[in-house]
Amino acid sequence: MDVYSNLKNLGIELLDATPKGGIYSPVRKFSDKLLYLSGVGSANAVQQNITGKMGDTLTVEEGQEAARRCMINILSNLHHYLGDLNQIKSFVKILAFVAGDNTFYQQPQVVDGASKLLEAVFGNEIGMPARSAIGVNALPGNIPVEIEAVVELL
Amino acid sequence: MDVYSNLKNLGIELLDATPKGGIYSPVRKFSDKLLYLSGVGSANAVQQNITGKMGDTLTVEEGQEAARRCMINILSNLHHYLGDLNQIKSFVKILAFVAGDNTFYQQPQVVDGASKLLEAVFGNEIGMPARSAIGVNALPGNIPVEIEAVVELL
Amino acid sequence: MDVYSNLKNLGIELLDATPKGGIYSPVRKFSDKLLYLSGVGSANAVQQNITGKMGDTLTVEEGQEAARRCMINILSNLHHYLGDLNQIKSFVKILAFVAGDNTFYQQPQVVDGASKLLEAVFGNEIGMPARSAIGVNALPGNIPVEIEAVVELL
Repeated sequence: MDVYSNLKNLGIELLDATPKGGIYSPVRKFSDKLLYLSGVGSANAVQQNITGKMGDTLTVEEGQEAARRCMINILSNLHHYLGDLNQIKSFVKILAFVAGDNTFYQQPQVVDGASKLLEAVFGNEIGMPARSAIGVNALPGNIPVEIEAVVELL
Repeated sequence: MDVYSNLKNLGIELLDATPKGGIYSPVRKFSDKLLYLSGVGSANAVQQNITGKMGDTLTVEEGQEAARRCMINILSNLHHYLGDLNQIKSFVKILAFVAGDNTFYQQPQVVDGASKLLEAVFGNEIGMPARSAIGVNALPGNIPVEIEAVVELL
Repeated sequence: MDVYSNLKNLGIELLDATPKGGIYSPVRKFSDKLLYLSGVGSANAVQQNITGKMGDTLTVEEGQEAARRCMINILSNLHHYLGDLNQIKSFVKILAFVAGDNTFYQQPQVVDGASKLLEAVFGNEIGMPARSAIGVNALPGNIPVEIEAVVELL
């Protein structure tokens, strides 16, 4: 399996660079094997960013598309850090935050938009991390989804 | 010390399986030694799930019982993954989210419901992880508590 | 570079002990190299704690000061655990929660108050971790900022 062939077949284009809104590193390595990735939103080089909240201004489907874009940004940051996405042994953990009103309870369905893309690109051996999906009242810049990740290298 | 004797003495029964509401792995391993566990709620095979929010519909005691059930679910997921809970060297970290209204500020007291159970079962050498307790406005399925964990193996 | 000289030059005093509001360890070690730190608030031995929420009762500048104090508490906990802050190889990850109203979206600017201090003390090789900045509706004791960290040792 080659990750880049999968991305091409799925019509997914990585971004040149993802916006960084503060004093931090997009990716940090521990002990040559574990990468910690900063939380990323759904900003997209081609299309406008998705803003708003679940249950208020956005549908579940729009939230899933935002989550999907977050995962593309995570893969973009990994590509720029590693140079080669085939060096990834396993996605170990993702932590996803979904902004919504006080009565929106479908955070897992929204985050599945990211998890489906990850599984499609890497398969379920590599691309099926542990996960938490958490609701919050507000995220930076009024984005609906922010996702961070922990990744193991070969 | 045998973990299963402790569980029996404390009257704690592990669940056969915990519900999984999305595309993810309940447990993922890094480097043969570190387990990352997905966030779990307070679903219980015997009793109805606890739903509602702190400060709104639930008392602190009800929140503590929900947190306690989250920890039983974490132990259940570990038992099903490892086959033997005595392989655990240390609970390294838990991250706990507590759903509540905007003026509920006793998240640590709620999460202590989980931490007390963990300490009772594993003792304070193994069962006293680093911890964060965070308030949020909504969790999946309107559960009041969700907890994820990082665990080191022998 | 000596960390304690930097702290002195910057006029930063570590605290004797940070308050602990529950059943947990302030710091836990994995595999002799990785430290997991519990979430800390902005309590300060000298000054009153900062309470309130972003967009509601606190300005961005007050939030940045709260975030800065959180980082001083993290460094204090590390100093008390390690005995020597010069043993730190790298700050790998911080996860920061900012309490605010539903229309406050400048969480990264608030958390920069912590990140600036970390970079000033340790430099950008050691002191520039991956980071997520998340908005929430309430934190323990009505503090505006809570930060947890993952740290690699030499």
